[in-house]
Amino acid sequence: MTLSDHPASTPEHHPGHSPLLRAARGLPVPHTPVWFMRQAGRSLPEYRALREGVAMLTACRTPELVTEITLQPVRRHGVDAAILFSDIVVPVQAVGLDVEIQPGVGPVVAQPVRERADLDRLPELHPDMVPDVAEAVRALVAELGPTPLIGFAGAPFTLASYLVEGGPSKNHERTKALMHGDPALWHDLCARLAQISAAFLQVQVDAGASAVQLFDSWAGNLSRRDYLAHVEPHSRAVLEQLATHAPDVPRIHFGVGTGELLLDMAQAGADVIGVDCRVGLRDAVARTQGRYAVQGNLDPALLFAPWEALEGEIRRIVDEGQAAPGHIFNLGHGVLPDTDADVLTRVVALVHRLSQH
Amino acid sequence: MTLSDHPASTPEHHPGHSPLLRAARGLPVPHTPVWFMRQAGRSLPEYRALREGVAMLTACRTPELVTEITLQPVRRHGVDAAILFSDIVVPVQAVGLDVEIQPGVGPVVAQPVRERADLDRLPELHPDMVPDVAEAVRALVAELGPTPLIGFAGAPFTLASYLVEGGPSKNHERTKALMHGDPALWHDLCARLAQISAAFLQVQVDAGASAVQLFDSWAGNLSRRDYLAHVEPHSRAVLEQLATHAPDVPRIHFGVGTGELLLDMAQAGADVIGVDCRVGLRDAVARTQGRYAVQGNLDPALLFAPWEALEGEIRRIVDEGQAAPGHIFNLGHGVLPDTDADVLTRVVALVHRLSQH
Repeated sequence: MTLSDHPASTPEHHPGHSPLLRAARGLPVPHTPVWFMRQAGRSLPEYRALREGVAMLTACRTPELVTEITLQPVRRHGVDAAILFSDIVVPVQAVGLDVEIQPGVGPVVAQPVRERADLDRLPELHPDMVPDVAEAVRALVAELGPTPLIGFAGAPFTLASYLVEGGPSKNHERTKALMHGDPALWHDLCARLAQISAAFLQVQVDAGASAVQLFDSWAGNLSRRDYLAHVEPHSRAVLEQLATHAPDVPRIHFGVGTGELLLDMAQAGADVIGVDCRVGLRDAVARTQGRYAVQGNLDPALLFAPWEALEGEIRRIVDEGQAAPGHIFNLGHGVLPDTDADVLTRVVALVHRLSQH
Repeated sequence: MTLSDHPASTPEHHPGHSPLLRAARGLPVPHTPVWFMRQAGRSLPEYRALREGVAMLTACRTPELVTEITLQPVRRHGVDAAILFSDIVVPVQAVGLDVEIQPGVGPVVAQPVRERADLDRLPELHPDMVPDVAEAVRALVAELGPTPLIGFAGAPFTLASYLVEGGPSKNHERTKALMHGDPALWHDLCARLAQISAAFLQVQVDAGASAVQLFDSWAGNLSRRDYLAHVEPHSRAVLEQLATHAPDVPRIHFGVGTGELLLDMAQAGADVIGVDCRVGLRDAVARTQGRYAVQGNLDPALLFAPWEALEGEIRRIVDEGQAAPGHIFNLGHGVLPDTDADVLTRVVALVHRLSQH
């Protein structure tokens, strides 16, 4: 079933008219759109059931599983967008890097990337290396009808940090040492990762994704000086390539603890800037000169608080979002694994009710 | 041997005239003082030898070990200050809480503190509960002569996060849920921890510590709104109690990722504001209205970079520090365990040479 066969694909039911895409473009919306980072994942019992005995990267490369897992939170919560179920290392695995996701640890790279010769293990990504991803996106777009699908990719710095450290890292010491100690190799590595990231997003957009989010999850560990000199040019390359290839597809740019970097990350080529819970949305709008839609920023930890306390925070955030050219309600970071899924459903309903026009 | 017996304790050799205390007070210095958070610790082979087979909290409660471990980096690196070797949970263990430091994990609390009844397990701290700490400080002050000893304590929020979560936590979900869900209990818990923290510092000051540092390591995980409403009053209580008790003892206030909170943390009652690597020192001075000395802010990850790259960063930081009313050179966070100790020694010498007046 293709998009054009879908009963809901009359023009007014196309994702292009959805609250999410309208908010991303700064247009009036019938209600504030809501989705949650990591909405597809461990907080859902139906996800845990589906993943039983299936390795993370196997799940990410199996179109039927990707489709089903991506749809689960849309069905359950009534969120305003789906986001492709994937992992930041899927495209580097697709080009041949030996990497796996260890449960309770995260991505582990068999041979970390630290020398120039290691770049040979990281060829460019071509669409025919990820036919499964295109297939999943096509199936999803057909199923989703008017609900937009957000494409997913990691940004060069965050990807590089996994590749250089060999796995998750609190302090990124080897990454920063490489960045400062061998800037030429660092830039070549990030340029390669930018190609991989952009090509991975392009596959998703070509298959029908209506928006993309570039995750630079660890960028907030950098000083602004380091971000501008060593990271921003490569994220910019990804976002600009997307802008050229698909100018109508909004680009969301997100990182954690990036209060110092919001304007730089927006100016790197985003339409929407992701904001974590450390910076109020009004501040975020001011820091980005009122020129970008904002996405965020409920503290995911507060989903563990009693409803009354949570409701107050949600009201405040919906209210603060009115100050932005466009507001997509989301968490400030991903859904935590032990989150009560029913609370998420309730959040969606409350945001919709509070923001109804 | 008491301080007054020490050959170096003529007035001009008293710590009160040291570069560290002068910088903290905004007075001219012969050179920029340097010390490193976690300078006493795993980066030193002599520390690892001494700790072999000795549990962390046992080491922290054994005056001979505390004294020797605290002195090791002063002897080796020629830093401008010692900081009492301790751990954030030492004072709560001293009041009777069942807590241990698990290697590779961190503090683990046998029964987390989550209900009002749990406060009963957390009585006030009286000096006679930590005679070993006073003894170590007295021995250190005598040994150190003109080199100041910095007293050490955790701030109420960071301490509370360990107690409520039961151990280290990335997201502090239970802590934030308690803060928002039962503000009365949260405030009572933090008030108790403020008493414990202040009393612990007071013991160190009474025994001869020349300055104190209050570590609110995880405060940067809070929004400014949460910090002001739920945390600042308790850190303020600690700092104010110290200011009343020992007005001449400078107070350093530190957290990681606290760019949004610098002014609030300074105004909570600090003389010196700790700055991590995410915010430049010039920015930090501007954000704190030029009214506070600054401490920081070399990225500890850069100690893994080649010396040439590291040297450039050090020059920049020493230079930026000139814009502050006073500058204490330090890292933006603690020394990482795998750091080459010789690099630290070299950093001290370079900062001294660059800043010689």
